[in-house]
Amino acid sequence: MRALVFDGRSLTLDPRRADPKSAEGEALIRPIKVGICSTDLEICKGYMGFTGVLGHEFVGVVDSVSGPDPRRLAGKRVVGAINAVCLKCDMCRAGLTTHCRNRTVLGIAGRDGCFADGFTLPAINLVEVPESIEDDAAVFAEPLAAALHAARQLHLEGKPYITVLGDGRLGLLTVQVMAQLNASVRLIGKHPDKMNLCTKWGIRHRHVDEIGRRADQDVVVDCTGSAEGLDLALQLVRPRGKVLLKTTVAPQMRTTDLSPIVINEIEVIGSRCGSIPDAIAALAGKQVDVASLISRRFKLDDGVKAMQTAGQPGVIKVLMEV
Amino acid sequence: MRALVFDGRSLTLDPRRADPKSAEGEALIRPIKVGICSTDLEICKGYMGFTGVLGHEFVGVVDSVSGPDPRRLAGKRVVGAINAVCLKCDMCRAGLTTHCRNRTVLGIAGRDGCFADGFTLPAINLVEVPESIEDDAAVFAEPLAAALHAARQLHLEGKPYITVLGDGRLGLLTVQVMAQLNASVRLIGKHPDKMNLCTKWGIRHRHVDEIGRRADQDVVVDCTGSAEGLDLALQLVRPRGKVLLKTTVAPQMRTTDLSPIVINEIEVIGSRCGSIPDAIAALAGKQVDVASLISRRFKLDDGVKAMQTAGQPGVIKVLMEV
Repeated sequence: MRALVFDGRSLTLDPRRADPKSAEGEALIRPIKVGICSTDLEICKGYMGFTGVLGHEFVGVVDSVSGPDPRRLAGKRVVGAINAVCLKCDMCRAGLTTHCRNRTVLGIAGRDGCFADGFTLPAINLVEVPESIEDDAAVFAEPLAAALHAARQLHLEGKPYITVLGDGRLGLLTVQVMAQLNASVRLIGKHPDKMNLCTKWGIRHRHVDEIGRRADQDVVVDCTGSAEGLDLALQLVRPRGKVLLKTTVAPQMRTTDLSPIVINEIEVIGSRCGSIPDAIAALAGKQVDVASLISRRFKLDDGVKAMQTAGQPGVIKVLMEV
Repeated sequence: MRALVFDGRSLTLDPRRADPKSAEGEALIRPIKVGICSTDLEICKGYMGFTGVLGHEFVGVVDSVSGPDPRRLAGKRVVGAINAVCLKCDMCRAGLTTHCRNRTVLGIAGRDGCFADGFTLPAINLVEVPESIEDDAAVFAEPLAAALHAARQLHLEGKPYITVLGDGRLGLLTVQVMAQLNASVRLIGKHPDKMNLCTKWGIRHRHVDEIGRRADQDVVVDCTGSAEGLDLALQLVRPRGKVLLKTTVAPQMRTTDLSPIVINEIEVIGSRCGSIPDAIAALAGKQVDVASLISRRFKLDDGVKAMQTAGQPGVIKVLMEV
């Protein structure tokens, strides 16, 4: 089969990758459309030390399930949770399955991803997509789940001020989710074209060069995908406020000043994966506009070019048809 | 008067510093004993950009109060909160007075400190010291308040595992406070002499080279006073656990990897000043052993040497008599 592979040094389309084999309880999935995430780009810079087939955002059709298939998933159109978990370790037993000690993560850790003609995931990870949700929307289930999860991690009182940093893929999803809370929400970005989407959505937005640095935000959500995002977040958040950190980047040498966390007694809260069923419900209810986020479309055969394009400024979501 | 002054480059004992003048509502205090904190050492490396008289840990006698003195503080032995606040800004009005937007901080920001023959603080900051508490104990009120505050910031359920990192001044206070919670507490340090105090107190302790890196602690409190402390804390804390960050150091160039915060969805919570009345109550109740923490005593005239000594490995608390 075809697969977009990162070997630790370079990214290539392998036309003859061996077909994946599904273990007992796993489904073999044929992706229809897949999305490129900043994490994919970071992996190609060394993040997670991952090598193999990239990709973790997909909508696809179940080819087969190895073993019993009580949900009759074969032939169904699905999206899915990307963590394959053991259900036995202390984290799983505590209900924190996304933190399974023995997990593999689709296209990120220990498991080949979905930028290929086929891939596997445990059948229990899969969620059927209602007919009302098009492929172009369903492929956003995974990043939208992550955005919804960020909102869940906040326990808000009153009508707080929330700033979302970053007008990229995740920032534009997250700010839409936050705008549905009882909060005064704004997006801070760098790209006028991207921020104009906020105008369409009725969400306030400002260019990063135009804002003051007064520490008055109750919550700042860092979706910049850059190590500098936390620095800015720590300048904007009020004392005893919260910074939700969604940015994951490869370790780098830089001047870091974490003393504002201590001096202003800020809570910095990491935020990762969310609930796929919640995302499907939000998509079915048309609570967020994902169609406007699609910048470019490629075929899997042009995967290397698709990845390069996804890393260019001004580009939001790049989809590939498989 | 005499004062130990940092001018931005070097530390000197100035024998002829101008006497401080207390503004309306402020008290002039004559310190009896003062303590050296890691923050004082960091300031001499550039932290906070502070210049002036150092010092914020003291027990002293009120010389006079400028204006009305309804509490009759003159002549009383006192300790005090180090933040001089406006009571008018949004933070003060929200009850977050330690985060006053217009604050000055004794010997740390905008206000000369207590390593001198005299210094000033607002009279409302002062807390009278009961006779039962000796000077040697009362001088610990400020750092003990900070340790008690850390415990207050945790909202514990069940019997969690808590690791305190750092066997220095603050770590040895903090671990004693944490050991009084319903928790399984241990200290991780580097100096056998210091950690032996834990044996005396019945608190578990391990050398940092002897511990595994399994991420299984519910709470890790970083009192290392070094930028590497957070790295280790992020390795030890369990997914969805909490890291209380007490370390403040000057910004520095180093390789930083904050991705564990996101991947493991950790809460990093900054922790600074606490309640001086709470600390006095804990000292009166002999809830913590502070006497064992005193390593060396100096006179203020030997302040430069005292500061050098406080920076040496193996030394815990250095006191100066004024």
